[in-house]
Amino acid sequence: MDQLQLIDRLSIPGTSKMVLLVMDGVGGLPGPGGLTELEAARTPNFDTLAAQSILGLSTPVYPGVTPGSGPGHVGLFGYDPLEWEIGRGVLEALGIDFDLGPNDLAARGNFCSVDADGNITDRRAGRIPTEKGAELVEKLRQIQLPDGIEAFVEVVKEYRFVLVLRGPGLADGLTETDPQITGVPPLPVKALRPEAEKSAQLLNRWLSAARKLLANDFPANSMNLRGIAKVPPIPKLPDLCKMRFAAIATYPMYRGIGRLVGMEVLPTGDTIESEVETLRKYWNDYDFFFFHVKKTDSYGEDGNFEGKKGVIENTDVVLPEILALNPDVLVTTGDHSTPWSLKAHSWHDVPVLLYAQDLRPDGVATFGERQCRTGALGHIQHQHLLPLIMGHAGRLAKFGA
Amino acid sequence: MDQLQLIDRLSIPGTSKMVLLVMDGVGGLPGPGGLTELEAARTPNFDTLAAQSILGLSTPVYPGVTPGSGPGHVGLFGYDPLEWEIGRGVLEALGIDFDLGPNDLAARGNFCSVDADGNITDRRAGRIPTEKGAELVEKLRQIQLPDGIEAFVEVVKEYRFVLVLRGPGLADGLTETDPQITGVPPLPVKALRPEAEKSAQLLNRWLSAARKLLANDFPANSMNLRGIAKVPPIPKLPDLCKMRFAAIATYPMYRGIGRLVGMEVLPTGDTIESEVETLRKYWNDYDFFFFHVKKTDSYGEDGNFEGKKGVIENTDVVLPEILALNPDVLVTTGDHSTPWSLKAHSWHDVPVLLYAQDLRPDGVATFGERQCRTGALGHIQHQHLLPLIMGHAGRLAKFGA
Repeated sequence: MDQLQLIDRLSIPGTSKMVLLVMDGVGGLPGPGGLTELEAARTPNFDTLAAQSILGLSTPVYPGVTPGSGPGHVGLFGYDPLEWEIGRGVLEALGIDFDLGPNDLAARGNFCSVDADGNITDRRAGRIPTEKGAELVEKLRQIQLPDGIEAFVEVVKEYRFVLVLRGPGLADGLTETDPQITGVPPLPVKALRPEAEKSAQLLNRWLSAARKLLANDFPANSMNLRGIAKVPPIPKLPDLCKMRFAAIATYPMYRGIGRLVGMEVLPTGDTIESEVETLRKYWNDYDFFFFHVKKTDSYGEDGNFEGKKGVIENTDVVLPEILALNPDVLVTTGDHSTPWSLKAHSWHDVPVLLYAQDLRPDGVATFGERQCRTGALGHIQHQHLLPLIMGHAGRLAKFGA
Repeated sequence: MDQLQLIDRLSIPGTSKMVLLVMDGVGGLPGPGGLTELEAARTPNFDTLAAQSILGLSTPVYPGVTPGSGPGHVGLFGYDPLEWEIGRGVLEALGIDFDLGPNDLAARGNFCSVDADGNITDRRAGRIPTEKGAELVEKLRQIQLPDGIEAFVEVVKEYRFVLVLRGPGLADGLTETDPQITGVPPLPVKALRPEAEKSAQLLNRWLSAARKLLANDFPANSMNLRGIAKVPPIPKLPDLCKMRFAAIATYPMYRGIGRLVGMEVLPTGDTIESEVETLRKYWNDYDFFFFHVKKTDSYGEDGNFEGKKGVIENTDVVLPEILALNPDVLVTTGDHSTPWSLKAHSWHDVPVLLYAQDLRPDGVATFGERQCRTGALGHIQHQHLLPLIMGHAGRLAKFGA
């Protein structure tokens, strides 16, 4: 019996309310003063809450492994991220709020430059501006495919676009066309399993038509497809947990991952304050709220210690408003670490704070990585957070007599 | 290779002695003074031992999951409790000291009341007294079944009884008859897999005969069968570990679970003192002693903080007598938590103390949940305790060259 089967079997309805407050990439590394971004941040509200909570450190995917945004969240939502992979094409489509269905095949597209012999000269087509990309995407929308297959082409940014094929019989298990080097032509899409043969043919047909259409559009006179994937047939959280899930996020990709696991995406604005407003407005309508704060990660990626610290402090400021709604369980953590000094996602464990009524406060009254290390929650894995939240919220029945 | 295969491969005979001292439901939650039952208890002997031991916290079954008594002990005995489930009927039979064999099919029975149309009016038959239940059970013993199948009927308490079918070809994978509501008739037993067809027929035949016999015994004029199950084909500990195991327990269910995993059940009295006497008497005859203290759980279920604390203190008083026998390894823990404030089993981690000769004492000199949090044993799972005990007792050979 795996975790999803266990939750499916034990979950019971109830009236308790749960909040999963994710500060993206919150885990950090020591800055100039020797403290991490979280340790250095002035967080009186998190610290007060810590004193009534249990703390710990969590491994998002696997020891030593740096998670992408997909696996980090898949783990937070209770799935084994090694089992439930979300392809790059799917994430790219979710990232532009494209409403992917179960029969859609999504790919990330990169415009590129080729010479007269068809050999790639620039894998990013001179980083054409987004407006130019949009023009080309518009051209590509006229391509028709047989067998009742629709093709959607959407601009992302600069040389990047998304291609989605929709229709019966599409399958993933397909190679990418990008050879990763210049001086050679793009590769054809190949099927890695028999079920994907038809999809490979359709994609090669689309690519051939697309290259003809853009033949005179140098430097963007060709393109590559990467991460061609379908939405995984992931069991939906509301069915497994017998709860109503809502996602509050300012960035499309996180709304998309929430939708993918069965959350309803709530309309919200661009700021943490507007997210809190949304939480308050829909408080009575859902059991479990996924509340996503993006900018901790963005500043981490920029190597901006003070900026990341500032977002944590902003989140601390709105915490009392969230607590005023009286959640039965509140967990604060990140999907992964994005230390300012690495300017990238990292493999480091992530601090976790679990607040609930019935627990043994561990006397740790500061929310920081080094404090979490001695907390009563111990060292856990991201995927264990969902059953821990449900257990503390009275949403799991006893196992066995 | 799973844990049982690993133990089977590495276990070696020896002369060392091990004691697993289980205080049922010992894990607690803060009481009026802010301390848990265990933290508040005066336990000078446990504290002295703690200073020479390593401490930790253990998850009995799964994070956030509340274990029944079966899974809690199955984990303590080294088995994966999600893999080795013990059905409710089996536990009920073990709970009245019924000696279940591998070909027995056991069910929990509940007498109920039905009206003239056969619809249930009271699922507990007005909670008839145990003496009345015993009379009805006596009547039901006259039912004969074909195909060499014997039927045993035993009284439990009030409206509860146990039915055990014994003979060739019985299988579990059967539905319960209790519709869980009144106003409808009991359901027939249905087979969930082809091998269980014959068992379903036999049970329905028995039910039909039983209802005829009790037709004039209102309010107990019908019955339901629940948790119909066979003993799982669990590998026996003496074979796996090459050791002799003994169980000392004042309550039948725990003796039964011990017997099920291959322990010999030792005769003992109703008190902790008599259990110590039994331990002393049989000390030379076994390698591993499972020593079960029940009343911590009972007081926890009653919400009696002082009562539970008192049982822990009583156990502390006899600890020197156990230590005087010079066990090579002694582990004290619980099968799960039963916090006084929840009056029920709970999902909270359980404190563990592991005493042995060769270890690195962690400087933690108090046995309590919050002390265990920082102990050298860390956060573990129940099923890891058996290999830890065996390792410290010199009963596991080196793995690999």
